[in-house]
Amino acid sequence: MEIKDVEERHEELFELLENRRIKELQQILEGMNEFDIAAFLSELKPQQMAMVFRMLSKEKGAEVFANLEVEEQELIINSITDTELASIIEELYLDDAVDMMEELPANVVKRVMRIATSETRNLINQFLRYPEDSVGSIMTAEYVDLKKYMNVRESIARIRRIGKDSETIYTCYVTSADRRLEGVVTLRELLLSNDDEIIENIMDTNVIFATTTDDKERVVNLFSDYDLLAVPVVDKEGRLVGIVTVDDVIDVMHQEATEDIEKMAAITPSDRPYMRLGTLELWRNRIPWLMLLMIGATFTGLIISSFEDALAAQAALTAFIPMLMGTGGNSGSQSSVTIVRGLSLGEIRFSDMGKILWKELRVGLLCGISLAAVNFIKILLVDHTLLGNSEITIMIAAVVCITLVGTVVVAKLVGCILPLLVEKIGLDPAVMASPLLSTIVDALTLCVYFSVARGLLKL
Amino acid sequence: MEIKDVEERHEELFELLENRRIKELQQILEGMNEFDIAAFLSELKPQQMAMVFRMLSKEKGAEVFANLEVEEQELIINSITDTELASIIEELYLDDAVDMMEELPANVVKRVMRIATSETRNLINQFLRYPEDSVGSIMTAEYVDLKKYMNVRESIARIRRIGKDSETIYTCYVTSADRRLEGVVTLRELLLSNDDEIIENIMDTNVIFATTTDDKERVVNLFSDYDLLAVPVVDKEGRLVGIVTVDDVIDVMHQEATEDIEKMAAITPSDRPYMRLGTLELWRNRIPWLMLLMIGATFTGLIISSFEDALAAQAALTAFIPMLMGTGGNSGSQSSVTIVRGLSLGEIRFSDMGKILWKELRVGLLCGISLAAVNFIKILLVDHTLLGNSEITIMIAAVVCITLVGTVVVAKLVGCILPLLVEKIGLDPAVMASPLLSTIVDALTLCVYFSVARGLLKL
Repeated sequence: MEIKDVEERHEELFELLENRRIKELQQILEGMNEFDIAAFLSELKPQQMAMVFRMLSKEKGAEVFANLEVEEQELIINSITDTELASIIEELYLDDAVDMMEELPANVVKRVMRIATSETRNLINQFLRYPEDSVGSIMTAEYVDLKKYMNVRESIARIRRIGKDSETIYTCYVTSADRRLEGVVTLRELLLSNDDEIIENIMDTNVIFATTTDDKERVVNLFSDYDLLAVPVVDKEGRLVGIVTVDDVIDVMHQEATEDIEKMAAITPSDRPYMRLGTLELWRNRIPWLMLLMIGATFTGLIISSFEDALAAQAALTAFIPMLMGTGGNSGSQSSVTIVRGLSLGEIRFSDMGKILWKELRVGLLCGISLAAVNFIKILLVDHTLLGNSEITIMIAAVVCITLVGTVVVAKLVGCILPLLVEKIGLDPAVMASPLLSTIVDALTLCVYFSVARGLLKL
Repeated sequence: MEIKDVEERHEELFELLENRRIKELQQILEGMNEFDIAAFLSELKPQQMAMVFRMLSKEKGAEVFANLEVEEQELIINSITDTELASIIEELYLDDAVDMMEELPANVVKRVMRIATSETRNLINQFLRYPEDSVGSIMTAEYVDLKKYMNVRESIARIRRIGKDSETIYTCYVTSADRRLEGVVTLRELLLSNDDEIIENIMDTNVIFATTTDDKERVVNLFSDYDLLAVPVVDKEGRLVGIVTVDDVIDVMHQEATEDIEKMAAITPSDRPYMRLGTLELWRNRIPWLMLLMIGATFTGLIISSFEDALAAQAALTAFIPMLMGTGGNSGSQSSVTIVRGLSLGEIRFSDMGKILWKELRVGLLCGISLAAVNFIKILLVDHTLLGNSEITIMIAAVVCITLVGTVVVAKLVGCILPLLVEKIGLDPAVMASPLLSTIVDALTLCVYFSVARGLLKL
């Protein structure tokens, strides 16, 4: 399944469609998996999409439907009958249905809710109430539950009976009469045990679980820490209400990493892929930060203005400003990005602050001194001797290099303190990564520069 | 399993250990899962770690061992007997064994290889030969294979017989007599079919697979595109040689996202967590980029120097340099980071270049004009009127604002072209994200600024 194959296949399917060779098209589609069909549908024009969708069998249709983007789902919903829609809704897993309802326009939601069975409607309504970014908002209700007095044979028989409607059958949950979670047993453990073994003896009572109101980022870390395929979700009373499966968590992981990266680049995150965002949306996601940072940078300008006399007296100093600010900003970003990532993977905690500061202080000194040394030689060899710029004296070289060391150390310390503090007060540390930090470090760099210049050059 | 619980439990276990209440400690450990035990062990002193490890049962020991960091594995290996080591090696899944061998010091590797059975030794040697970052380097050899003429009952019986040693039993692979991959069938499909059904009739022949030499990033995208739990890996001849399971892929995802983020922040990626890196290692990962970018920034300095006369004539222009460079850099980063992320998730391809440029041109114009408008008002109201800075004329405001529009547009275009080009020539686009791009954009910004200033102010 190379990318090229996919494009070739789309070409082939498209030709069949254009030439109205519907029978052959239908046959090929039935042999394809739901993900590839969804990818093909999303390349078609609206009318064609609805037509091809209706060629699919009922079951395949529901599977493909779950893998379409919400705009495409809306289009399909608007072109099928109530009966067809009803069967799709009942076939969908609850998490897919809830995702869709969150984004569909109100009139379409109304129609879907009217058509759904009252049981489905109640479940959807209940799941829609979980806050965004909570575990509740990504879980699904279809799981296999067992009782601890069952034996392995009965359990396997139950799985074979009710498994068709469960999102996973590989992890089964043992619940009490009042739906409290008592243990967990994997299908693997069931199959590798004797048929007469009682569940109570093989289930794991030390269950890793999440609660509906947990942040979904926490559940991601449970999956990676414990190599799980599904995590049970309980409500405040400890009753099992749903599960989160690993395939949904992979999507959350991609999303969270993208969001972190976007925030680090001063973009308001969007949950839709770039190619689907319009110009206005992109503008809206980007302009607030650019505006804020631009205004922040005018303070840097004010600092320069207030040292105008000094710069006029020693014009050579101006030329080093971009290099100093750039190096300060880069040094700070390196630290802050490392800390932000460590925080989001759960590898770093606030209590590590002391150790981190000590480490960054030493790294900052090492980096600062290395850079200053190279720069000192470069100024004397290239600027002073080679280019014969007599304005650039040894004293100016000293000012620049001392500033470099000071700036790098300050940037590294600020770069690790700020994200930790922001995390501590409960905000997202990712906004403290590069650009906002750079603006702060820029101002600090200039303060260091002009103080050193004043002191050494007696300006 | 809240974080607090974990710390409390460690405290409790630690107390039992200190008071030599070994029996109780052993009992609690036997009830814990391998991940939590590994986390506890890594908080102990070397001697204690070895002691506690030897309290574990043989099977638990091997599971815990697979979840330790390589330094801890080395410590354990050096404190157990050959017989104990042999049983751990044979219990380990091949991918864990190979990971370990890649990082252990040569003398320890020698001992492990001497003790392993010749079959294990040969497999390890074969797997060690796959290039870093290839699918071969993360796959494992323990899977369930079936034949297409088997029926469901026979298949389930086979799974129950050989499943104990397989890393997953949930996806089974149907192979021909010469080990060619013919189809795939999930345990779910097996259990939901009739006992007498023949595998050939229920297996999926449209198999999603990877080859040993594929980049491991590609396999990550297969998992997220197709919601898979395992992907089969074939060699050049199409023979099944191993599988990659979803838990390993989650680790790869975390690693790849961290690497991308680090490269975007001008850090040479490291595969070890921040808290485990020493000062020198951190310095080594950070200094090359800082050095390169510092040298790059001196060109920006050269541009400023060559316009020294203009700046001397209109000193007010200097104060706007940080704001203009900052805004240019931030605008460029927004675009480049978005493109880099889109490329790594497979959402953007080189062939989208035209569409992307057109989109970024419009977004750049919108952003540039918004910023310029706010800035124009701010300069006239605050700088000119409020602060009474007579140097700042309407003409200077015009120069600054025209530069802003030009700079933002140029930065956005360069920000999306560079990563696409870098990807096209086969390098990693992530290095073209923020800092390197900022350095390039800084120079471009100054060129725009001074050209506009020369033109409008007749300098």
